[in-house]
Amino acid sequence: MSSVAFNIPPLSTSLKSALQAKIDTKTKPLGALGRLERLALQIGLIQNTQTPALRQPTMLVFAGDHGAALAGVSPFPQEVTRQMVLNFLAGGAAINVFARQNDMAVRVIDAGVNFDFGGIAGLVDAKIGMGTCNFLQEPAMTAQQCEAAIAKGAELARQEIAAGSNVLGFGEMGIGNTSSAAILTSKLCQLPLAQCVGRGTGLDDVGLQRKRDLLAEAVRRHDVGDDPLAVLATFGGFEIAMMAGAMLGAAEQGALLLVDGFITTSALLVAARLQPAVLDYCVFAHESGEPGHAMQLANLGVEPLLSLEMRLGEGTGAALCYPLVQAAVNFLNEMASFESAGVSGRDA
Amino acid sequence: MSSVAFNIPPLSTSLKSALQAKIDTKTKPLGALGRLERLALQIGLIQNTQTPALRQPTMLVFAGDHGAALAGVSPFPQEVTRQMVLNFLAGGAAINVFARQNDMAVRVIDAGVNFDFGGIAGLVDAKIGMGTCNFLQEPAMTAQQCEAAIAKGAELARQEIAAGSNVLGFGEMGIGNTSSAAILTSKLCQLPLAQCVGRGTGLDDVGLQRKRDLLAEAVRRHDVGDDPLAVLATFGGFEIAMMAGAMLGAAEQGALLLVDGFITTSALLVAARLQPAVLDYCVFAHESGEPGHAMQLANLGVEPLLSLEMRLGEGTGAALCYPLVQAAVNFLNEMASFESAGVSGRDA
Repeated sequence: MSSVAFNIPPLSTSLKSALQAKIDTKTKPLGALGRLERLALQIGLIQNTQTPALRQPTMLVFAGDHGAALAGVSPFPQEVTRQMVLNFLAGGAAINVFARQNDMAVRVIDAGVNFDFGGIAGLVDAKIGMGTCNFLQEPAMTAQQCEAAIAKGAELARQEIAAGSNVLGFGEMGIGNTSSAAILTSKLCQLPLAQCVGRGTGLDDVGLQRKRDLLAEAVRRHDVGDDPLAVLATFGGFEIAMMAGAMLGAAEQGALLLVDGFITTSALLVAARLQPAVLDYCVFAHESGEPGHAMQLANLGVEPLLSLEMRLGEGTGAALCYPLVQAAVNFLNEMASFESAGVSGRDA
Repeated sequence: MSSVAFNIPPLSTSLKSALQAKIDTKTKPLGALGRLERLALQIGLIQNTQTPALRQPTMLVFAGDHGAALAGVSPFPQEVTRQMVLNFLAGGAAINVFARQNDMAVRVIDAGVNFDFGGIAGLVDAKIGMGTCNFLQEPAMTAQQCEAAIAKGAELARQEIAAGSNVLGFGEMGIGNTSSAAILTSKLCQLPLAQCVGRGTGLDDVGLQRKRDLLAEAVRRHDVGDDPLAVLATFGGFEIAMMAGAMLGAAEQGALLLVDGFITTSALLVAARLQPAVLDYCVFAHESGEPGHAMQLANLGVEPLLSLEMRLGEGTGAALCYPLVQAAVNFLNEMASFESAGVSGRDA
């Protein structure tokens, strides 16, 4: 399928020892900046330079509706998706606050909200449909819709990079989308479904059990195996598919990817099954309070930067981690070396 | 002792329910901003307002030398303390890079470096002595020096607050000061000394064992019990004593305190034994890679914001956590409410 064919270059390691030497001669004990040192090395390798620079950091926030939301998998009504899109456009949501603080742009993308926004200013119209179908009854989307969403996501990422950005953060909004993410995680990580299902926006015990029962029934209904595109089309959301495409497109162009929480990482699971090299370009922003996220991170063998018991989505974790990413680049570029500062090294 | 008499007001809780209601009506699921919500509540209570503001965030970096450093408890020579002070003044150290990034001022304070800086520009001269005495042989400082350091620290904090700051971060530099911090932690938290001793700037196994042996001998030599001021005077450093005073002075004035890692928290242990209410004003920036820090945090019953395997000191963790503190204040002040944004609440 041409629209989902990507060619992500593996990182060149030609500068690895030079970068590590640069890190090790900074005025600090060896390794004393911990995770920031590994992050500086990663970014240097991605940009293939000893003096990396972060340009026009941009949050891509993909919104979509879910047919399954109408079955009661969320305590919030579906209309909240469109209401939150309008909140994003008005600058009043958490992602707006955090992005503004950190000088990041926010692009709000209608991947498939069940509402006609009528060409409203500021919204990127990438609508694949008026919400997905209810996977409790039928596949969420067709294979063609799934491919179109991936291709559109890649196109949007390429546009941002062509316009000058080299750091893209990923976030989402979609009432019901922890249900999609739970099934994707179970299927793609081969984990028991019940372990991947959490309270989402705040289900009580009865609601959580109902969600588990409904999703188990959905999984029994569709015999799709673990092919990532088939799983995505059957159980995913338009915003998840478009995020997966945007991640692949961004990595293909050599950008740094800031990966948010449970839903965003479910998109990355799809992307990584298609192109494992995408992972080399990812910074894992935080560990969500939604319990399935820790399992996703463990499956990928990666560690998040933050762990703040957040479970909001929108890309909020990705925006909050950005100052740490800046700090990694800044120490690499700005800190004095033992030699330049005239500081003695360790005793022999 | 008048110079160490502080009167830290307990937080007024009169606004607690109003602040929590404000947090709970923001456009997000209940509790979805996790730790940031508790931080916003804390800062609102400290400032006793529903619209807190962070003003002139300032890092206070206290430097001092340690007589015990000459006995080989660190792999770096003592002269590195003064060399790093000069690096701070030149803007080339990690704390400079991170503070600059986050628009924080840095004050470099000579609490007792074993070097005559001769009135160099930019350095705050608060020198108590040319380094402490070697506690392997005699008490590190006299009771009078200890009190003078505490009083001077409080005075410096009050000056910053009088000049307009309401957020003070704490950091330090002093070759050998993980040894002081280890003994303070063991004494004040009643923990076995060996558990509190770590590799500091990077001791190997032989060096670590030697450090443990030397510190055990020092503890046997001085029969001081667990009186915080006696422990501080016997085993502390001028920079640690001055930090403790600055923390007490800052909390007394109602400032927010950003507490860095192992050494800084050892100063806070002293401060909190004198005035437990100081803890209400503290944000715990990160968990250091130095193992004793986790034990300090557990003893205080607090959780750090970051955990990045850092072990550099200088206040670097405190500077790095500041954007999260800003994020807590910003969401409280700037996020829309369900009502203002026209977003539906949970289904009944």
